Amino acid sequence: MSDRKEFHDLVDPDVAHDAIESLELAPAPETVPLAEARGRVLAERIDADLDVPGFDRASMDGYAVRGRDTFGADEADPVELDLVGSVHAGTEPEVEVGEGEAAEISTGAVMPDGADAVVMVERTEEVGESAVAVRTAVAPGDNVMLAGTDVAAGARALGPGTRLTPREIGLLSALGLDEVPVRGRPTVGIVSTGDELVRPGEALHSERGEIYDVNSYTIAAGVEEAGGEAELYPHAGDDYEQMERLLVEAAEECDLVLSSGSTSASAVDVIYRVIEERGDLLLHGVAVKPGKPMLIGELEDSAYVGLPGYPVSALTIFQTFVAPAIRDAAGLPEPQTATVRGEMAVRERYAEGRLRLMPVGLLTDEVGETLVYPVDKGSGATTSLVEADGIVAVDPDTEYLDAGEAVDVRLFSPDVRAPTLLVAGEDDPALSRLLDRLDNPRFLPVGSREGLRRLGGGVPDAAVVAGPVDRDVESVDLGGWTREWGLVVAAGNPLGIDGLADLADRDLAFVNRGRDAGIRASLDAAIEELAAERGASRPALTESIRGYEIGSKGFESPARAVARGNADAGLGLRATAEKLGLGFVPLGTESVRIRANPDRAAKPGVEELAAELEGAAETGLFASLAGYESE
Amino acid sequence: MSDRKEFHDLVDPDVAHDAIESLELAPAPETVPLAEARGRVLAERIDADLDVPGFDRASMDGYAVRGRDTFGADEADPVELDLVGSVHAGTEPEVEVGEGEAAEISTGAVMPDGADAVVMVERTEEVGESAVAVRTAVAPGDNVMLAGTDVAAGARALGPGTRLTPREIGLLSALGLDEVPVRGRPTVGIVSTGDELVRPGEALHSERGEIYDVNSYTIAAGVEEAGGEAELYPHAGDDYEQMERLLVEAAEECDLVLSSGSTSASAVDVIYRVIEERGDLLLHGVAVKPGKPMLIGELEDSAYVGLPGYPVSALTIFQTFVAPAIRDAAGLPEPQTATVRGEMAVRERYAEGRLRLMPVGLLTDEVGETLVYPVDKGSGATTSLVEADGIVAVDPDTEYLDAGEAVDVRLFSPDVRAPTLLVAGEDDPALSRLLDRLDNPRFLPVGSREGLRRLGGGVPDAAVVAGPVDRDVESVDLGGWTREWGLVVAAGNPLGIDGLADLADRDLAFVNRGRDAGIRASLDAAIEELAAERGASRPALTESIRGYEIGSKGFESPARAVARGNADAGLGLRATAEKLGLGFVPLGTESVRIRANPDRAAKPGVEELAAELEGAAETGLFASLAGYESE
Repeated sequence: MSDRKEFHDLVDPDVAHDAIESLELAPAPETVPLAEARGRVLAERIDADLDVPGFDRASMDGYAVRGRDTFGADEADPVELDLVGSVHAGTEPEVEVGEGEAAEISTGAVMPDGADAVVMVERTEEVGESAVAVRTAVAPGDNVMLAGTDVAAGARALGPGTRLTPREIGLLSALGLDEVPVRGRPTVGIVSTGDELVRPGEALHSERGEIYDVNSYTIAAGVEEAGGEAELYPHAGDDYEQMERLLVEAAEECDLVLSSGSTSASAVDVIYRVIEERGDLLLHGVAVKPGKPMLIGELEDSAYVGLPGYPVSALTIFQTFVAPAIRDAAGLPEPQTATVRGEMAVRERYAEGRLRLMPVGLLTDEVGETLVYPVDKGSGATTSLVEADGIVAVDPDTEYLDAGEAVDVRLFSPDVRAPTLLVAGEDDPALSRLLDRLDNPRFLPVGSREGLRRLGGGVPDAAVVAGPVDRDVESVDLGGWTREWGLVVAAGNPLGIDGLADLADRDLAFVNRGRDAGIRASLDAAIEELAAERGASRPALTESIRGYEIGSKGFESPARAVARGNADAGLGLRATAEKLGLGFVPLGTESVRIRANPDRAAKPGVEELAAELEGAAETGLFASLAGYESE
Repeated sequence: MSDRKEFHDLVDPDVAHDAIESLELAPAPETVPLAEARGRVLAERIDADLDVPGFDRASMDGYAVRGRDTFGADEADPVELDLVGSVHAGTEPEVEVGEGEAAEISTGAVMPDGADAVVMVERTEEVGESAVAVRTAVAPGDNVMLAGTDVAAGARALGPGTRLTPREIGLLSALGLDEVPVRGRPTVGIVSTGDELVRPGEALHSERGEIYDVNSYTIAAGVEEAGGEAELYPHAGDDYEQMERLLVEAAEECDLVLSSGSTSASAVDVIYRVIEERGDLLLHGVAVKPGKPMLIGELEDSAYVGLPGYPVSALTIFQTFVAPAIRDAAGLPEPQTATVRGEMAVRERYAEGRLRLMPVGLLTDEVGETLVYPVDKGSGATTSLVEADGIVAVDPDTEYLDAGEAVDVRLFSPDVRAPTLLVAGEDDPALSRLLDRLDNPRFLPVGSREGLRRLGGGVPDAAVVAGPVDRDVESVDLGGWTREWGLVVAAGNPLGIDGLADLADRDLAFVNRGRDAGIRASLDAAIEELAAERGASRPALTESIRGYEIGSKGFESPARAVARGNADAGLGLRATAEKLGLGFVPLGTESVRIRANPDRAAKPGVEELAAELEGAAETGLFASLAGYESE
């Protein structure tokens, strides 16, 4: 560890780009069947090796002749030729046309030997059974599509580096090729580290602090999207021998090895040592946020890049530094939709002295222009993976990005599109159904209070607000509903919980919601009322409720805690209690309203939302949601 | 056949769109492994079924405590708690924290039961071995990341219709899902008709008039690109029973059946009868060029669409009418790069009284704007498949599109890009190598004369001109080379052909090039000279050369005819003779020049070409090309 380079040697991001480019990923070309060639890139030029069509083809119904025999023929003075047979399309000519001879021929048929032109049938007349009178002169080549007219043998058909789309597949078909030499796809081994990581689909032991491995499949999908082939390797622990064996195995089998997944400093240390001792460490530490601890090196003639552990950081560094190298190796251009230009929706301060790859979300304004806002959840959150659409690179010396300033966003995928509607606020099961009816909406379950705050800040198109509101924000009410809220208790209410007073008076374990939740505001209003009834102070009352202070984020979380037996009562909805088969003690009914940003009320996504809301009751939005009513 | 609807009942293209939409393609949803889910579309909403993280997690190194026990603690008046054990990251806590107790805890570790807050280690001091002094008050929840903070169980994670990109794969991983419910991909059966069609890779009998089947793989690639699964069925002949069996089999196995490939009227008739007798013919004949004879119907509960036979027409009708229906069924949006806007490079007249789907090529002007020009090869040509980039829909009542007019081009694939360089003119092996060194160039082998004509018309960026030139076009000479031309004869020249005079004086079968070829102009100049020497007329001389009048298109075609034994001599290059192992009788040396459109001389693609040309000799462009010299 004494020789470990320190992060104060952070290299410039351009140096990191160059280092990755210097690693030769390019795999050997391969040959694939034509049916699997779409999307691949030609490894070499394809010259036509045959003529298309491959034969001189009659392009009219008529008579195949030697053109010279018709010279001078016209209506007044026809030439009479001996009829020697006939040729039909799709058959091999059995006749030969000599001087003074003709053969009947149909469109598409092969020109018989000796003939060099076709006289169209309208300018001829049969004379008995064995001769034809030709009433026009034809030059050699007339009404004949010569072999090679479409594609001539020897001609350059497709160049190296051509991306094969359906039309190129068509040309290759015409040339009779059923397999094609294409650029190889670089193979990318993904090594996931960290004892706490569990593969999706396997049992998770939360009690041991296990979490699902997010990075492996995310980065694998990114590799495939960039034109590589991803190979997942089993998890490695922090043990040197095991890590070395795994990394060397991956390096021997793949063109590039990525490690990712661990936030564990000791695992990173072990990898660092393996690369340095067994391979060649090119650089460690890049002046970029996130991704500072990036490693770039070589191992067993393969390239190695170590990605950060947090999912958004890992994907950011992958898309910025690694995906371009994979595309280059595969011969693919950067997708045209890899970046999008938009305007900052808000001002964002920055002055950190190194390049910042800032995760941002997209939305559209009322005229369809793209707006860009920072997604500020901390790089540790998985949800910011889907709340961020891409990254804006902010220069080290940029102090702030002003609202309205144009920025280029590198999307997390060329398939990412700005949501048609951005809504923030109270999570609610009817809202979920409403969103299901819209095309590509985005909802941020930040609670009513935070939703309103953000609406006031100008980013979301609309906020979902439940319960009493202590803040006024200019908005257009699009409609809403009411929902019954109260205490979710164990099925059958075995503790006989009767109401709010029991929470204060009995030693019950309660699970609350966070302060931004509208339902929490409804609870606080009810507590206020109870305190007033009792002539007590509100703090005194809340202090007597065990669990009051800890607010959980999810709207079902309190009920789920009750279902697990971890709590006696949880703040929630009658609909949630019914869904989870639990008991319910009603405390009231609250209103849920959707309030739109007035500037965006005419935006198509908002109008679509308003229209769905308008007919919500009739279209069964509240069906089987206990305690719900349209308002 | 008496009940066959006539083409004069042509329906409006919108009716055809509606008819295809009315056919229900949508296949049943399916479940796919997470590793194969990229690019698919969620069939239903995914709500989180677990909390992420799944446990309350210490976010600091320190002591897990009950917050209430620390109330009032400060530097001056610490609270002393009993130390009951320790908890490390990745392990299950073995202690429980009761009133007045604390447990040592590390970052990322699971909070032990009873504790609700963490005091950071810096604000504590161990007191002996079994107690710790806490010098600050913490509220319940302080320094704890609650279970579900990232994603809360019960929350809406992803909506139905979400396209799965790497980031969504990441969120699904976090939720532990290893398989995902996605929209089914519609299966599309492709039935190819016509006895003359042969699958690529199989032997082609040109002498019987066979050609390779272009449409099957082209349309199959289009189906896959649109999100469907293509299934190729064996060729059907024109026999009713056989065609019926095949169509019914395809309809039973697929959501949609496309027939395509035959230009044979009788095959189309047979299909028409099968659909009408066994299924339901919705419409026949659409007012669109190309594609008039389109059939739309139903068969065995599957949809059926009959595409035109010519490749460009088939792909045009597929992309315009069928691909949108496949995408809808798969739940995929239209790709953002499906269309591009450009300016007409030339004026194009039109007045045909029905919608025209005009194949066009793209190029870019000197400032990178997209220019659009009609590709005019007749819909029968396979090469126009790769010379056209897409289609412009021209309304029936449009009389002309003016040069400079803005048009929308529907690309033949979202992966199609405008070439960086458009060159037209003389085909040449050194040129092919030169083009191989450029990124995405396009070359149209139209011959020197036609290349110059087009250069004058303003479409190509450059023309390749060989031999003597009879037309002057303003241009910038980018450079060139010389090449030796003459007569390609059988290996060893067994007929002892000595020169041009032999062609005129002996009965030799000669294969010429077309009038647009520069090498033909060189030949004609040499004939002129010979005629002058002999005091003969040029026509008298050419008339005595058998084959003079028939010009083949490909630059290797005459030599290949000699190689096949079909001719005694062919007009060609020494380089071609050497490549094909044939004999060569030199007639002269001609210059090949690349001449650029003066308006585009500063365009990057042209500059790149000029730079490659500049260093051509040094970089081995002419290596092993016999008879080539840089000029």
